[in-house]
Amino acid sequence: MIVTVALNAALDVTYHIDGATRPHATHRVSRIDAAAGGKALNTARVLHALGTPVLATGFLGGHTGDQIAERIPDGLRHAFVPVAGESRRALVVADPVDATGFWEPGPQISPAEWQRFIDRFSGLMSVATVVVLSGSLPQGLPVDAYGQLVALARQQRVATIVDCDGPALHEALKHKPDIIKPNAAELAEAVGDADLSTTAGVLAAADSLREAGAGAVVASRGGKGLAVSTPKLRYTAAPPEVLSGNPTGAGDACVAALARGLYYQTPWTIRLTEAVALSAAAVKTPVAGQVAVDDYLRYRRSITVKEL
Amino acid sequence: MIVTVALNAALDVTYHIDGATRPHATHRVSRIDAAAGGKALNTARVLHALGTPVLATGFLGGHTGDQIAERIPDGLRHAFVPVAGESRRALVVADPVDATGFWEPGPQISPAEWQRFIDRFSGLMSVATVVVLSGSLPQGLPVDAYGQLVALARQQRVATIVDCDGPALHEALKHKPDIIKPNAAELAEAVGDADLSTTAGVLAAADSLREAGAGAVVASRGGKGLAVSTPKLRYTAAPPEVLSGNPTGAGDACVAALARGLYYQTPWTIRLTEAVALSAAAVKTPVAGQVAVDDYLRYRRSITVKEL
Repeated sequence: MIVTVALNAALDVTYHIDGATRPHATHRVSRIDAAAGGKALNTARVLHALGTPVLATGFLGGHTGDQIAERIPDGLRHAFVPVAGESRRALVVADPVDATGFWEPGPQISPAEWQRFIDRFSGLMSVATVVVLSGSLPQGLPVDAYGQLVALARQQRVATIVDCDGPALHEALKHKPDIIKPNAAELAEAVGDADLSTTAGVLAAADSLREAGAGAVVASRGGKGLAVSTPKLRYTAAPPEVLSGNPTGAGDACVAALARGLYYQTPWTIRLTEAVALSAAAVKTPVAGQVAVDDYLRYRRSITVKEL
Repeated sequence: MIVTVALNAALDVTYHIDGATRPHATHRVSRIDAAAGGKALNTARVLHALGTPVLATGFLGGHTGDQIAERIPDGLRHAFVPVAGESRRALVVADPVDATGFWEPGPQISPAEWQRFIDRFSGLMSVATVVVLSGSLPQGLPVDAYGQLVALARQQRVATIVDCDGPALHEALKHKPDIIKPNAAELAEAVGDADLSTTAGVLAAADSLREAGAGAVVASRGGKGLAVSTPKLRYTAAPPEVLSGNPTGAGDACVAALARGLYYQTPWTIRLTEAVALSAAAVKTPVAGQVAVDDYLRYRRSITVKEL
């Protein structure tokens, strides 16, 4: 079983408005969409859609927490820890041209609630094969929250994928996660002023994060695909054309493919083919955490993976 | 008892952001405020704060309905009809300079839900003295919804105040509400291209709405005060200085004073003094439905009411 951890799960709310977004004016919302979100829940949905055994956990609280729980697909198992605070909304105002985002801060987690989560997590690790730790940390958690969870997973021989940034990533690396998946901005932040304009530069930066503790580093380069550093080989994986669309969904689908690769123990070349194909299929859907499975199967035939 | 009817009650949510509001960018929300809102609930809160017997009714639905109910002050009686739809949020994004509004459409009311409300309302009219009908109509209600309620109230000799605009106001006038309270924009919309730049022009427009069915017309002129047409006399009522601030709260506080005037059967000069003083006190508070009672008592000594 793959366990996905959404410590700062979100209700992704989209307000559709018919005219332009104008600061300091009022706007009538013509339609509202709401979906369960946050990176780890998006990854869980992709895994569930592909029939991979998955369980989602993390924190949920308040009315927004209830609304997130109601929107988790039927059959996707979950075991969230309830908290006193209110789960966050990630509000997007979509006008006819583009989208404007307003991110709520999310709940303040108490030390007792964090301890309850650690207890829950430790129990789940006894039945898990792979764990996905992704997304931002809510307020109140220690900066090494992901590091602590990686250590607990390793104790029970559960493979770990970490997708976060900043100090949380830095702390997680100390506990040697199996895979991390920085995007270009996260890679730049993590390695300082390296030249990331070339594939060689990205691979060198990925190598340095592997030296800092990661088992493998899968650097996502947006529409250009992936550059990957593993203990044995380095890889690039690219779609047949540069795709544009919903980047949140693409990153979370990529993580889903990497989790499947660990779960089914597939070779890196197959893992990366699946990762780029799933990302490409996710880019084409407007809702993060959804993939068009027929697009995925079609793209899978046209991905180029190179061993370097 | 005064009954206030909030057919489209709202959760007034304010997102505070630290920087400018920029279309097509993302913004971190640093603080969230949420209050029970909608014009009729604001009026109910003011009446309750002044110790006037009041009961709030209308429709509430979904998680947002629950969140509104949780935020009705302790001791303010309410008897809302539950609906299957989701009550609306009125979202304001407050940046350091000004505010941007996003108004959700609110629930779709079914014919059966409307009938349940009419049954509830008819029962309440047997114990009410005054009823306040204010705010927009939710989707699914007949355009003469307020007209039907005015007619039911009149059958049981309950005095009516209507604060709405457009076709809903037009239909309500046919049933002869005791008082209507248009603001400048609503007055202009109702009477066409009258000259509303002068007191005489506003009073002439108010007279024409009285001829269309209203017992009295209290036209609010923002910081300039009120111009009033009644069967016997016409009045103006003005604060000592032009005030600026929260106009929603001011209008709802004005309606509260008019409802108190009907309830306690005070003469128009006293009613209007209270209406302007309460509005002025409300303008100074950032949350609609709140008034600073000491401001109110102080302003009351300096209002100028003229009989014309």
